[in-house]
Amino acid sequence: MAYELYYWPNIQGRGEFVRLALAEADAPYVDVARERGTRALTALWEAEDVEHPPFAPPFLKDGKKLIGQTANILLYLGDKEGLAPKNEVGRLWVNQIQLTIADLVSEAHDTHHPIGSDLYYEDQKPEALKRAQEFRKGRIAQLLGWFETILARNPKGDSFLVGARLTYADTSLFQVIEGLSYAFPKAMKRELRKAPRVVALRDRVAARPRIKAYLQSARRIPFNEQGIFRHYPELDG
Amino acid sequence: MAYELYYWPNIQGRGEFVRLALAEADAPYVDVARERGTRALTALWEAEDVEHPPFAPPFLKDGKKLIGQTANILLYLGDKEGLAPKNEVGRLWVNQIQLTIADLVSEAHDTHHPIGSDLYYEDQKPEALKRAQEFRKGRIAQLLGWFETILARNPKGDSFLVGARLTYADTSLFQVIEGLSYAFPKAMKRELRKAPRVVALRDRVAARPRIKAYLQSARRIPFNEQGIFRHYPELDG
Repeated sequence: MAYELYYWPNIQGRGEFVRLALAEADAPYVDVARERGTRALTALWEAEDVEHPPFAPPFLKDGKKLIGQTANILLYLGDKEGLAPKNEVGRLWVNQIQLTIADLVSEAHDTHHPIGSDLYYEDQKPEALKRAQEFRKGRIAQLLGWFETILARNPKGDSFLVGARLTYADTSLFQVIEGLSYAFPKAMKRELRKAPRVVALRDRVAARPRIKAYLQSARRIPFNEQGIFRHYPELDG
Repeated sequence: MAYELYYWPNIQGRGEFVRLALAEADAPYVDVARERGTRALTALWEAEDVEHPPFAPPFLKDGKKLIGQTANILLYLGDKEGLAPKNEVGRLWVNQIQLTIADLVSEAHDTHHPIGSDLYYEDQKPEALKRAQEFRKGRIAQLLGWFETILARNPKGDSFLVGARLTYADTSLFQVIEGLSYAFPKAMKRELRKAPRVVALRDRVAARPRIKAYLQSARRIPFNEQGIFRHYPELDG
C-alpha cells in the first residue's frame, strides 16, 4: 500500500526531506494535500479520534501508523526503506546528523521570521536583517565546517556522511545546501568554497537517478517565498 | 560502567532532559564538566580522532559510544534504561513528543535571543520583548493544548503521555513546564489553569521518589539567567 504524506501543497518546507527520501527509495506515495486538497490534510490533523495527533505537518501515514515530526518520519523510513544502517550505532549517528540539520532548518526559517511565525515578513523586516546577518556570518560557516569534518572522518571515505552507502542524512544535507543556496546565493557561494566535500556530496546526491528524475518532475515544487528557504536579496550579502 | 554526560556545568539547559532521565533510571553517571572541569568537555568535543563529533553539547559517552543531540541521547537511553515502550509504534510516538518538546525549548530560548546566540540579551532586548509577546500569546497555549489532548486520548489513561508507564517524554514535559513557569510565571499561571492534566502529570513526575531526591540534591542546578529558561520580568505578562 502506498504511503500517504501529509504536508502543505505549495511549498517544499520540511515535507521535502521526506519527499526526497521517498524518491530515493522509489517508494509509492500519495502527496495528500496536493492530490486530494488541503482539506484532506486538515481533516486528519484535526480528527478527534486520532490516538497520536501530530502537532504540525509533515506527518506520514503507513497503513494504520501515523507518524509526525520530520526526523521521526525519516527514522522510520530509514529502517523500512534501507536508507539507514541496520546497526544501532549507525542508526543513531544518522539520526544525530538529521537532528542537527533540523536545527539548521529552524534557524534558516527564523532569518525571515525572527519575531513570530504568525506575522508577515514585512512586519519583522528590521529584525530579520539583523538575524540574517548573524546567521550568515557565523552559523553557516560553523555548520558547513561540521559537515566537512564528518565527511573527512568517515572511515569508509567521504562519498557519504555515514558509512559507504547513501542514507537519508545525505538527501537531507543535499536539500539544506540547495535551500541555503537559493536563499543566500552570495553568502553560500563564498562559504561553499571552503566546503569541497559538501559540494561533492550535493552533486553526488543530485546525480542519483531517482533523485534526478524527481527533481525534474512536476512533483518537485520550486523554491518560493512561502517556504522555509526564501530569497529576499536584502537578507543576503 | 558509569555514563559520562558532557554538558555545561552552570546551567540546566538541554542537558537537564538527560539528567532527569538518568535520575529516574537510577543510572550512575559522571557529570563531566561539573566534576572534572569544562576543559574535559571541550577536550572531547574538539578531539580530532573522534569519529562521530557532536555539533554541540549535550553528548553522552557510554563506553565507546558517543551520542549527541538531546532527543537522540534520550532515544538511546529510553531503550537501554526502560524509559520507553519496546514496540516500534510506542517508541516512535515517544520520540515524536520529545521532538515537539525540543522545538518548544528552542522557541523558549529565542524569546530572549531572537537575533543571535552570540549576542547579549541586552543587545536584543527590543526584539526580545516582541518575540516573547508572540510566544506568550500563541505558542504556549497551543502547545499546552496539544499535551492536554495527548493525555486525554491515551487509551491507557491520563497518568502518563504514552501508555501506562512513565517514559522520558514525561520527565521532559515536567522539565519544560518547570522551565516555562520559572521564565513566565504570570503567563503560565494563567495558561496552566486550562491544562489540568498537564499540571497533574508535572506533579506526578515531581513526586517520583528518584526525581524528588534528584531535585533536592546538589546535582540539580537552580534555574538562572544563563540557561534556556530565563526570568526577565519584562518578557512576562
